[in-house]
Amino acid sequence: MTKENIEKVRVFALGGVGEIGKNMYVVEVDEDIIVVDAGLMFPDDDMLGVDIVIPDVSYLVENEDRVRGIILTHGHEDHIGGLSYVLKKINVPVYATKLTLGLVEEKLKEAGVLRHTTLRLIDSNSQLTIGSTKVSFFRTNHSIPDSVGVCVETSQGAVVHTGDFKFDQTPVDGKQAEIGKMAAIGERGVLCLLSDSTNAERPGTTKSETEVGQGIADVFDKTEGRIIVTTFASNVHRIQQVIHASVKTNRKLAVVGKSMIRVITIATRLGYLDAPKDLFIDIDEVSKYRDERLAILTTGSQGEPMSALTRMAKGAHRQITINVNDTVIIAASAIPGNEKSVSGIIDKLHRIGADVVYGQAKVHASGHGSQDELKLMLNLMQPKFFVPIHGEFRMQHAHRSLAVSVGIKLEHIYLVDKGEVVEFTNGQARLAGKVPSGNVLIDGLGVGDVGNIVLRDRRLLSKDGILVVVVTLNKKTGEFISGPNIISRGFVYVRESEKLLDDANELVESILKKCVSENVNEWSSLKSNVREGLSRFLFEKTKRRPMILPIIMEV
Amino acid sequence: MTKENIEKVRVFALGGVGEIGKNMYVVEVDEDIIVVDAGLMFPDDDMLGVDIVIPDVSYLVENEDRVRGIILTHGHEDHIGGLSYVLKKINVPVYATKLTLGLVEEKLKEAGVLRHTTLRLIDSNSQLTIGSTKVSFFRTNHSIPDSVGVCVETSQGAVVHTGDFKFDQTPVDGKQAEIGKMAAIGERGVLCLLSDSTNAERPGTTKSETEVGQGIADVFDKTEGRIIVTTFASNVHRIQQVIHASVKTNRKLAVVGKSMIRVITIATRLGYLDAPKDLFIDIDEVSKYRDERLAILTTGSQGEPMSALTRMAKGAHRQITINVNDTVIIAASAIPGNEKSVSGIIDKLHRIGADVVYGQAKVHASGHGSQDELKLMLNLMQPKFFVPIHGEFRMQHAHRSLAVSVGIKLEHIYLVDKGEVVEFTNGQARLAGKVPSGNVLIDGLGVGDVGNIVLRDRRLLSKDGILVVVVTLNKKTGEFISGPNIISRGFVYVRESEKLLDDANELVESILKKCVSENVNEWSSLKSNVREGLSRFLFEKTKRRPMILPIIMEV
Repeated sequence: MTKENIEKVRVFALGGVGEIGKNMYVVEVDEDIIVVDAGLMFPDDDMLGVDIVIPDVSYLVENEDRVRGIILTHGHEDHIGGLSYVLKKINVPVYATKLTLGLVEEKLKEAGVLRHTTLRLIDSNSQLTIGSTKVSFFRTNHSIPDSVGVCVETSQGAVVHTGDFKFDQTPVDGKQAEIGKMAAIGERGVLCLLSDSTNAERPGTTKSETEVGQGIADVFDKTEGRIIVTTFASNVHRIQQVIHASVKTNRKLAVVGKSMIRVITIATRLGYLDAPKDLFIDIDEVSKYRDERLAILTTGSQGEPMSALTRMAKGAHRQITINVNDTVIIAASAIPGNEKSVSGIIDKLHRIGADVVYGQAKVHASGHGSQDELKLMLNLMQPKFFVPIHGEFRMQHAHRSLAVSVGIKLEHIYLVDKGEVVEFTNGQARLAGKVPSGNVLIDGLGVGDVGNIVLRDRRLLSKDGILVVVVTLNKKTGEFISGPNIISRGFVYVRESEKLLDDANELVESILKKCVSENVNEWSSLKSNVREGLSRFLFEKTKRRPMILPIIMEV
Repeated sequence: MTKENIEKVRVFALGGVGEIGKNMYVVEVDEDIIVVDAGLMFPDDDMLGVDIVIPDVSYLVENEDRVRGIILTHGHEDHIGGLSYVLKKINVPVYATKLTLGLVEEKLKEAGVLRHTTLRLIDSNSQLTIGSTKVSFFRTNHSIPDSVGVCVETSQGAVVHTGDFKFDQTPVDGKQAEIGKMAAIGERGVLCLLSDSTNAERPGTTKSETEVGQGIADVFDKTEGRIIVTTFASNVHRIQQVIHASVKTNRKLAVVGKSMIRVITIATRLGYLDAPKDLFIDIDEVSKYRDERLAILTTGSQGEPMSALTRMAKGAHRQITINVNDTVIIAASAIPGNEKSVSGIIDKLHRIGADVVYGQAKVHASGHGSQDELKLMLNLMQPKFFVPIHGEFRMQHAHRSLAVSVGIKLEHIYLVDKGEVVEFTNGQARLAGKVPSGNVLIDGLGVGDVGNIVLRDRRLLSKDGILVVVVTLNKKTGEFISGPNIISRGFVYVRESEKLLDDANELVESILKKCVSENVNEWSSLKSNVREGLSRFLFEKTKRRPMILPIIMEV
């Protein structure tokens, strides 16, 4: 690089900082734009009716000619779930490891974008040139196999993105994280590290997945009745351990739940799951086996109301009804926001009288490294600059403290928000403005047609319901011919509130008469008079503020 | 008791089992009905628009002539918050300790029931005869002073209700739980124990409140800037420790938040808080003091959007704006269901750059005993029968296991649901049916006028909004004169969905025309045709199912 042509490296997040989910990061090296991950997020409680949330990618759309590809670090929804929406807007190659590609292919096919998309298979030893930029990888441990970190070479040093990771010394598949490779990357020189902050508030080291397998095996060993296990569908390692435990205790295994069946099918086909041919049985066959010869692996670990596990607990599942002789293993923790529904299913199972194994039992481990592991990553990479990613702001904040404790300079650490650009030239960093970023809400088939006004209306409606006031006016005389009729939904029990609604009707009638006599005949004034008068009356009587929708028809 | 006149004791919960909150228990000794507590619960996420939930007390209303009184164990909302509603339905004396009465009086005054209510002051040494039944008390430790357990004497042995409790060996006010008295009750003979299950899943012993005080004092000692502390308003002991820390570090203390001011005023007046006269300053005076001479005690520990702390963090509070030099102590844990809003406020404070002390720091302790303390209570009381109360079902379940481990017979333990009656005669117990019980929802001024239908409508409205379809028909000809007009709220952005709404309009028009031509002129059929046709169309186009409200006017 000559002085006339100084390399410019830009790093920013389109999602995944200041939040858990919809991870999407961008590394720009001069004219090359390389995207890492394209995830989704599940909506907050106040995003009423919204199904999923994806990042705003208008920056990528505007610069489509420079986007060289999207690299996926692993196959979790918060890293791949937004991909099909993004690929509808920009057509760029996708790079991913085998299992990740397998999971992605299905989704792209469903969304109708598979045929137009170039998918490129990589492994942790791949060495690519994407655009003019060299990119390599390193294997990590996580709660799904085939996870990698990404190393983007620049003349100023490498930009390293860890993906999600922990250091599992006894991984289920025997494939340790490539610590030597990480150390070598660090030795060569890391300009900037982007590292997973999910567990930055948690001291010590995260438990090995193998310990979880032992915990599950212990339950299998000592249980005589039927066993029902629920975990995250994507946790292939844990599923493998459920398979081992079933084989060891001579049980058949039935799999329930669409996403669980999908992942097991793909993972088995691609060689990530190893099971004897006669282990799996169809759910319709369970009645052929005695309880002590049966295990059931199911979705529903978050207590989702429509999930297989919840239906089994409610007696609403076609083949399985959980009973007092069953043992249920909840091999998962509650994702933030799901605490109440997870408690709910645990309670339901206890009420049935089933044995429930959860919580303090060793049947779950996080897929994210704790403080000691985050420090190890920092020490291996020895980055000049550090951008904590993957997490709420307080986790990025805690990660910064860890980085300072291992010797990274405080002023070399950037706690960025979505869209905030860190720009590197001549090995120096500075904040360089913002690119467009934000939430795109998906409700049904609508992408982006639900926003603040629609959500505000839904919130209003959800609190106190709605009153529709309909009246028909004579176009010529301005007198009203029929109505006012008041129809309410979600406001009060109509039968028990007849008097209230009658009084409201009278009030509206008198407001309208007054308007007519005063020659107020603009509709907007009529409507606002009705709305205000009625709202005041109802609040006084009920302390509620339903939405009021006056409709005036002219004939 | 002769055989001809066998004493019958009945015990049941109207609230507080199978749930956290709205605690209300009934002990019947022959003709005497004694009620323990009258709490409220905050609504679940799916109780849209509901403000609070109280127990269904129709059993008490039906048997008002036998209700001898309501005993309050302590002053928390989940034990006293339903009282004013209950007293509007039945007029019975209320028994409570000094602080509890102080807190209750205000509430009853606001609700307009104070003047008609007999309030009786008790302390832990009171010996009462309520109706013909002897009742005594014992002091417990809890996160509010003046908490007691209740001992109801019967000829078959005592029925003991622990209230909420922990065993704090170093309580802030120096008043240990009356273990000797509990042991004596146990020695005399306990027929049935009702004991607090809140922390039955938690091993070991709960931390002393004094340790929390030390944790808070440590932060005060080492902090130079302004300190903002938030905790539960009712935690008088913790407030006392904030007072101590402020005095020790020579800071003035400003109190913010209606409930915090209310509790401090009452607790100070009644002698439960001890502070130098010149410690407290008005919030308007804070600008007169340097940061290092200031502490602020505020509500908002649950991240409530309208609370003082949230407003301070958002710059929306009139006198205080939290800045980078502040230290904020969150001396509370998240109540189940509030996890996300508590995380939200912690993130917000970190973004501001304030020092935030929370979580692993020693600035909070539970008010409920853990497993070792629950076992101690069981061992002190040595009850013949045991009913775990206060908690979700899984907590009652865990408490049962603890009871079995200290030697209570499994078949002597009743995991009851709301309304389920345990009846004792001749020292034997049996389940004896159910009394009416359930949730009464309070929305604004309405008590019980919001139920399943209203909530179902609110849920529908909250998901996909509403479409109102208005059409005016000629009464004689059946032809339609004006409309159809479609008005939507909370469905889509109208501006971006013009085509969709135009198409919907056309569809409705054609449905109506068809109905008219086929002489379908019953309104209900017209309406259901419109509803079904439009619903199908919208689902196909958007995968959403808004509520559809057809309104047909005749002129």
